[in-house]
Amino acid sequence: MSLKLYFGPGACSFVPHAMLQLSGAEFEPEMVKLHKNEQGGEAFLAINPRAQVPVLVHDGMVLDQLVAILLYLDDLLPDAGILPGSGPARTKALQTLMWMNNTVHPTFTHIFMPFKYTDNEAAQAELRRFNTRLFQQRLTEIDALCAALPDAGWLSGDKPGALDAYALTFMRWGSIAKIDPTQFKSLWALANRFYDLPALKPVLERERLQLNLMVA
Amino acid sequence: MSLKLYFGPGACSFVPHAMLQLSGAEFEPEMVKLHKNEQGGEAFLAINPRAQVPVLVHDGMVLDQLVAILLYLDDLLPDAGILPGSGPARTKALQTLMWMNNTVHPTFTHIFMPFKYTDNEAAQAELRRFNTRLFQQRLTEIDALCAALPDAGWLSGDKPGALDAYALTFMRWGSIAKIDPTQFKSLWALANRFYDLPALKPVLERERLQLNLMVA
Repeated sequence: MSLKLYFGPGACSFVPHAMLQLSGAEFEPEMVKLHKNEQGGEAFLAINPRAQVPVLVHDGMVLDQLVAILLYLDDLLPDAGILPGSGPARTKALQTLMWMNNTVHPTFTHIFMPFKYTDNEAAQAELRRFNTRLFQQRLTEIDALCAALPDAGWLSGDKPGALDAYALTFMRWGSIAKIDPTQFKSLWALANRFYDLPALKPVLERERLQLNLMVA
Repeated sequence: MSLKLYFGPGACSFVPHAMLQLSGAEFEPEMVKLHKNEQGGEAFLAINPRAQVPVLVHDGMVLDQLVAILLYLDDLLPDAGILPGSGPARTKALQTLMWMNNTVHPTFTHIFMPFKYTDNEAAQAELRRFNTRLFQQRLTEIDALCAALPDAGWLSGDKPGALDAYALTFMRWGSIAKIDPTQFKSLWALANRFYDLPALKPVLERERLQLNLMVA
């Protein structure tokens, strides 16, 4: 089996990157330097014409789209705890994952890459302003989900999984927009527990990941 | 088994609405009048605080998020053809479904409900303008996917499924933004074949659905 993951440091590709690492599966992490716009370069466009990470390549099959990759890995590595295995817990986790992907995630894109939605600079500034307030609300919602967990519990169920890695990512992104992550007590605690997982270390080193970019 | 679907006429809830109907399963369709903002009313907010359709209620379990509902129904009704059953066809269909949900769908939201992204009127007008051009490109991409199908084939595999219903919905929405749907020859043909499925008729009547709103 050959398994390769294209990831961009700090991007949402952290989620499958972390899941693959924690699973113990053998895989080849391939860095795409987003700050050098490598995702827009000829070599990467030949892999994913949508110019986005993550991309998973499994025995020649090329797959993009974060959630599609997570569902695929969850099938491939059922013991990795990416999502709860079955029943209402799985159903609700998928609901939350979808909301994260189609609502929380693009709220940040409006702050970080407003040019994706308009080429007008004044409108871009408005998008940044409005969506920063909105992103604060989304993080508050995620913080409430974390607060409702049992002690040392995870959003993804018994094990640290996809929802936890995604939540950590949003919190980090918030700090880029000067939204102080330490204000979200439960989310901050969960993200720190995830960050401190010994098995995650190689991912943190590869991505040079810090939780709070306001103090970086 | 009790199965209830909250749908808004013409909204993305058409996708599970159509799938439930085509499956032959017994279900209770419950209309939410979006033009009267019923989704923002107290009664509906008690069901889904996110004020969005679709919502599925199955034996008391309440589920929102289009893709989460489709995955749930696909498990519950494996013969309905909502998604390909397994293998690379399923993987690729999930990839396309995710792209539709997190990219094509919100492109239209920027045209139809720009106030979700900014409260500045000039910026809203810019969003409408820019995203109308972008939505034209997205529909062109979907048209190319349809053009690559075998004769009388479906985006979702052997049977008319979720991707077909979603593609039809986007094409209809485009016509609201004055993007002529007949220009997308292959998508237009697929949408018409879907629309003409005899088993779909009750859905079309409930939603009073027309394919091309430019001539409505």
